[in-house]
Amino acid sequence: MTKPIDFYFDFSSPYGYIASHRIDAIAAKHDRSVIWRPYLMGVVFKINGRRPLPDQPLVGEYACRDFARSARLYGIPFKMPDRLPISGVAPSRAYYWLDDKDSEQAKALARALFSAYFVDNKDISDPEQVAGVAASLGIDGIAVTAALQDPAVKERLRKETDDAIARGVFGSPFILVDEEPFWGNDRLDQVDRWLATGGW
Amino acid sequence: MTKPIDFYFDFSSPYGYIASHRIDAIAAKHDRSVIWRPYLMGVVFKINGRRPLPDQPLVGEYACRDFARSARLYGIPFKMPDRLPISGVAPSRAYYWLDDKDSEQAKALARALFSAYFVDNKDISDPEQVAGVAASLGIDGIAVTAALQDPAVKERLRKETDDAIARGVFGSPFILVDEEPFWGNDRLDQVDRWLATGGW
Repeated sequence: MTKPIDFYFDFSSPYGYIASHRIDAIAAKHDRSVIWRPYLMGVVFKINGRRPLPDQPLVGEYACRDFARSARLYGIPFKMPDRLPISGVAPSRAYYWLDDKDSEQAKALARALFSAYFVDNKDISDPEQVAGVAASLGIDGIAVTAALQDPAVKERLRKETDDAIARGVFGSPFILVDEEPFWGNDRLDQVDRWLATGGW
Repeated sequence: MTKPIDFYFDFSSPYGYIASHRIDAIAAKHDRSVIWRPYLMGVVFKINGRRPLPDQPLVGEYACRDFARSARLYGIPFKMPDRLPISGVAPSRAYYWLDDKDSEQAKALARALFSAYFVDNKDISDPEQVAGVAASLGIDGIAVTAALQDPAVKERLRKETDDAIARGVFGSPFILVDEEPFWGNDRLDQVDRWLATGGW
């Protein structure tokens, strides 16, 4: 087993959601594991002045069409949420809190949170919704709610976001394969090829 | 022969250049022709506030790496020009002037201009360079230079740019297949699939 690949995403990102359905299977084909690393793209937007795609004139309408078309292409359920983007703070903190205890269960929670938002139109920026999703997986909702305000958990998310930016990460999804950067769900075929060939 | 597909690009766009090497072959597989439509992305940037990728903090370094990596993936010669972006006014006007006379020759000129910029590092925003590239194809350089100041040619490029934006075009490359929009060199595999299947 070689070095895991890093999968960065923001919980509010449709392309991050789509990639979350694909990345583990691609890595597994090449005997690689994946570390999921939610972070806050809002911090990036403050640095580079970009805005979320749906908010950009001309781009917005296309982006919404492309989110749905990309999901259909891969057979992934998708419904545009009423609100997008939303803050990824609560779901990301819940993820890292659980990741310290059980990284596989944390991934399961991340998948369930993504589904709640991009299939069931639940506003996962709301701590109550996060606790509810966690509870549906048998995770103690009260402990989750407490964790969202835990200084150590807050610091973990801050550090993950800072570390991401320090490594050159700026989008969602953003994948690092042995430090080679790939930005976008539309680079996953290249990730697959890079893992197979070691580069070109 | 069904309706041609529209291939929009800016002469200063690396991904537009890469797509110019691929689009005609993809269309030909499905018995479709391609109308090449250079336009001025600077006009789009004024509307939506985006900036060229290399100028964006965090994004710039990745973008330059990805331009070269994408070109290598498809075996397309590429050398990052010293200046990017540049104005596409002169090469676009030359293209449309020639397109009125001979659209195939106009495509040949567009390919030669792209090569001059993205392989030989010639600044094709310079009318003299455009005339020189045209002359290398046996096109009268003096006529080209005159055409660049022809009011009708100027108007044609303005109209093409306005029409592009009115059709929802905002990036480079940007492909319309029976009005279905695809943004980016990384959507060409989807263009191929859309042409084969009629959509999904």
